[in-house]
Amino acid sequence: MLVQFTSPKNEYLAPKNKMKFTAQQIADALGGKVEGDPLVEVSNLSKIDEALPGTLSFLANPKYAHFIYETPASIVIVNDDFIADHPIKTTLVRVKNAYVSFAELLELYKQNKGKRSGISSRAYIAPSAKIGQNVYIGEFVSIGENTSIGDNCQIYPNTSIGYDCKIGIETILYSGVKIYDDCQIGDWCTMHSGVVIGSDGFGFAPQESSDFRKVPQLGNVIIEDQVEIGSNTTIDRATLGSTIIRKGAKIDNQIQIAHNVEIGENTVIAAQTGISGSTKIGRNCMIGGQVGIVGHITIADKVMIAAQSGVGKSILVEGEVVEGSPAFGIREFQRSYVHFRRLDQLVKRVNQLERK
Amino acid sequence: MLVQFTSPKNEYLAPKNKMKFTAQQIADALGGKVEGDPLVEVSNLSKIDEALPGTLSFLANPKYAHFIYETPASIVIVNDDFIADHPIKTTLVRVKNAYVSFAELLELYKQNKGKRSGISSRAYIAPSAKIGQNVYIGEFVSIGENTSIGDNCQIYPNTSIGYDCKIGIETILYSGVKIYDDCQIGDWCTMHSGVVIGSDGFGFAPQESSDFRKVPQLGNVIIEDQVEIGSNTTIDRATLGSTIIRKGAKIDNQIQIAHNVEIGENTVIAAQTGISGSTKIGRNCMIGGQVGIVGHITIADKVMIAAQSGVGKSILVEGEVVEGSPAFGIREFQRSYVHFRRLDQLVKRVNQLERK
Amino acid sequence: MLVQFTSPKNEYLAPKNKMKFTAQQIADALGGKVEGDPLVEVSNLSKIDEALPGTLSFLANPKYAHFIYETPASIVIVNDDFIADHPIKTTLVRVKNAYVSFAELLELYKQNKGKRSGISSRAYIAPSAKIGQNVYIGEFVSIGENTSIGDNCQIYPNTSIGYDCKIGIETILYSGVKIYDDCQIGDWCTMHSGVVIGSDGFGFAPQESSDFRKVPQLGNVIIEDQVEIGSNTTIDRATLGSTIIRKGAKIDNQIQIAHNVEIGENTVIAAQTGISGSTKIGRNCMIGGQVGIVGHITIADKVMIAAQSGVGKSILVEGEVVEGSPAFGIREFQRSYVHFRRLDQLVKRVNQLERK
Repeated sequence: MLVQFTSPKNEYLAPKNKMKFTAQQIADALGGKVEGDPLVEVSNLSKIDEALPGTLSFLANPKYAHFIYETPASIVIVNDDFIADHPIKTTLVRVKNAYVSFAELLELYKQNKGKRSGISSRAYIAPSAKIGQNVYIGEFVSIGENTSIGDNCQIYPNTSIGYDCKIGIETILYSGVKIYDDCQIGDWCTMHSGVVIGSDGFGFAPQESSDFRKVPQLGNVIIEDQVEIGSNTTIDRATLGSTIIRKGAKIDNQIQIAHNVEIGENTVIAAQTGISGSTKIGRNCMIGGQVGIVGHITIADKVMIAAQSGVGKSILVEGEVVEGSPAFGIREFQRSYVHFRRLDQLVKRVNQLERK
Repeated sequence: MLVQFTSPKNEYLAPKNKMKFTAQQIADALGGKVEGDPLVEVSNLSKIDEALPGTLSFLANPKYAHFIYETPASIVIVNDDFIADHPIKTTLVRVKNAYVSFAELLELYKQNKGKRSGISSRAYIAPSAKIGQNVYIGEFVSIGENTSIGDNCQIYPNTSIGYDCKIGIETILYSGVKIYDDCQIGDWCTMHSGVVIGSDGFGFAPQESSDFRKVPQLGNVIIEDQVEIGSNTTIDRATLGSTIIRKGAKIDNQIQIAHNVEIGENTVIAAQTGISGSTKIGRNCMIGGQVGIVGHITIADKVMIAAQSGVGKSILVEGEVVEGSPAFGIREFQRSYVHFRRLDQLVKRVNQLERK
Repeated sequence: MLVQFTSPKNEYLAPKNKMKFTAQQIADALGGKVEGDPLVEVSNLSKIDEALPGTLSFLANPKYAHFIYETPASIVIVNDDFIADHPIKTTLVRVKNAYVSFAELLELYKQNKGKRSGISSRAYIAPSAKIGQNVYIGEFVSIGENTSIGDNCQIYPNTSIGYDCKIGIETILYSGVKIYDDCQIGDWCTMHSGVVIGSDGFGFAPQESSDFRKVPQLGNVIIEDQVEIGSNTTIDRATLGSTIIRKGAKIDNQIQIAHNVEIGENTVIAAQTGISGSTKIGRNCMIGGQVGIVGHITIADKVMIAAQSGVGKSILVEGEVVEGSPAFGIREFQRSYVHFRRLDQLVKRVNQLERK
């Protein structure tokens, strides 16, 4: 098992996996060096703060460094440049990047668990749809006319895909994903449960009668390759043209992306952030959780936006880091906020000055 | 096509539509006036900032006015009162309201695309349910006992509707909408994918044992006519009585509306806003994205609330505009925020005064 | 009926229920005392601010106390210690806790409505799944290999449950719930529509090439007994080990709980809050709506966090109450915010001092 959860109900358990390797075998597999007993064996993975004997763990986040001196884990993967402050009892495997190496091991584990395959007789595939080789299509999946599904895709139960869509190869759609007509998803993508792709943009023209006329949304959504989208995230179709998520973008759960937005390559967005219509986000940006970004602006490459910030105008300088609602430079925000916390004292000081 | 997306993968394309009209024909259809070549033809629609030759575009947002002098679009629809600063090469069609006129053209396009029809043999319709004329009911739709569906409704795959519900005429429920028992939806409504109508309100009575007793939620949700609700929005049923969304309200994606809330006619709410239990919102309000509103308060008609604001008490003055968390007058907020940004300077000035 | 909604369309109605009891019968059932006419009869429940003659209402929230002097409700349940300021015409039933007593009556009502039962022939149950006694499994439900469902569970249409899951007894999963492989849900739980349990945590290791490598998420989600989870809430599986929701926790709609988070017993979280990876929340905490909490921190028992706050570091003192983004002591925050609102005046006063 991974980490046994010591619940009052002992039938509660984390999922089980099996392996048995020595420290030397692991070091060889990862191109690392053993420090300690090369023959010690592990049969499981664990987190360093919840490890048990017989497990392999890793240390990447310096916040967790103090755990290494007392961990019962039999082997810990660390970065090449890790320097111990105290004696260490466990066996270390030193690698270039402990987090990446651990991810590789997790990947091996994951592959051992096997992949679903076959097309359920309870799925509905429209006659004109084209289905690739070696796909999994689960129960109650519905695939519309003229839609194509690439090789090795996995489509979990209760997912529905509209007409005229195109899904690339090796893409996974988990249960209950909804894809509207005309949308396109690239290769090696993952959409988690409840994701909605291609719902109408929020466009209503005010009328003289003080009600609204819906502006039809005729565009689509294009998701390039290697994009991962978290559960219950919604991406609206463009009014005209396309809402675009570029290659390698990573989008967390419950994010709202409005019509005609474009998200640049390898940009990472944390949960519950919302991006309003027609805004263009650059490459390699990092956007925190619960951020709001207004419509019709541009965010340069490598910009970082702190959680809960509200971005009200374009950020044109590459690599800028902002915070606040409305957002401005993170250092300036944090300095102002320190004073905000003590505003009471400042007011008292002004009172006193006035009395003099 | 609308706007061709010039991707490294050129099979990525926005959806295709066809038309062929002269500027004069368009002006006649919209009741407008041609300025330029009345015989120039277009075969597609485009956004003014991404237009191609042979397309029709529009200019409504003044932010985009500079595009009109260089746009390759063959025809641009503009407001009657638009005044050019520079010479314009493209043909203009002047109308009363360019945005509304463009919406009309989009509507014509949309209608050309056709509407789905027929009842799938893979849907489940309870024996006592009543289904209107000319409806579309997709695969794996489930419709419960005593529920009625009006004429011309479209219910997309994997949607489920409970017992004793009533859906009006001409209403669209996209894939994966979930409607609980007893809820009512009016005519000409649109619910996007993943919308949840009628889940239990969040009501728990604290017990002496420090745990909670659930308060059963026996009311329902009533959605009046011409309401549009965005994807993954959730609207809880009332504890008693009804949670009500009045006629013409427009509700964006991922909005949370708690039990016993009432939203007034033609009120517009942007994405990710949350409204707590028993709050009443007036008519024609405009509420920005990621706003939070506490429970048991009243918001007057035509109130505007800036994005990310937190409203902690009733707003009783019609047309008031607020910002901040907690929110107050938008001008006062913005003035205070300007000072907040420079708080460091103010503190330095007080330091200096004290030194004297 | 509960409260008749006086809509322009009078076919809009709240759901109907029937009962007929005297004040004395109700007092006896609840262990309370009648004050007024013990023989007055009611046939329905209502909210005190929307009551009609012949209905039973309750008063718990002091905000609503003024309604009691003019309510047409025939009987009102109040707390033992309620003291009237003016004469009251309605009959009172005094009980220890009016809200809890009213909840009990609602519960009786709810039970009268009946419970669904039977397994639909349109559901898919994998051959190795184990299904308990007396369950309801609706249309287009999909239950994966080796999953077990406890006695008396109710699983509404279009829900999908993965492989190797365990659902306890008496648990309700409403339409369109999605549960990934390996997850465990306790007894007497309720998951509302669109809930996603067990999607991948948001873990990506940055690569030298400036793109990201996905960190496989091999853990699971464990939800203990008596937990209620609101519609469209998402709970990610752990990277290793388990994301855990402890017994009795109440989690509202559209909440995001990241991988390896732990929520303590009887903690209550309001809508649209997000909790980042590996954070541990104590018991009996109360967390407002739209709160954001960073990853890898600890929140002590009984902590209260005001709506829209952003918590950036551990809160180690039991019962602390915080507000702000970033959050600090609620009194200090509110004092600072009062000054923030008047920052303009303070600046003017400093201007004046400088002029002297």
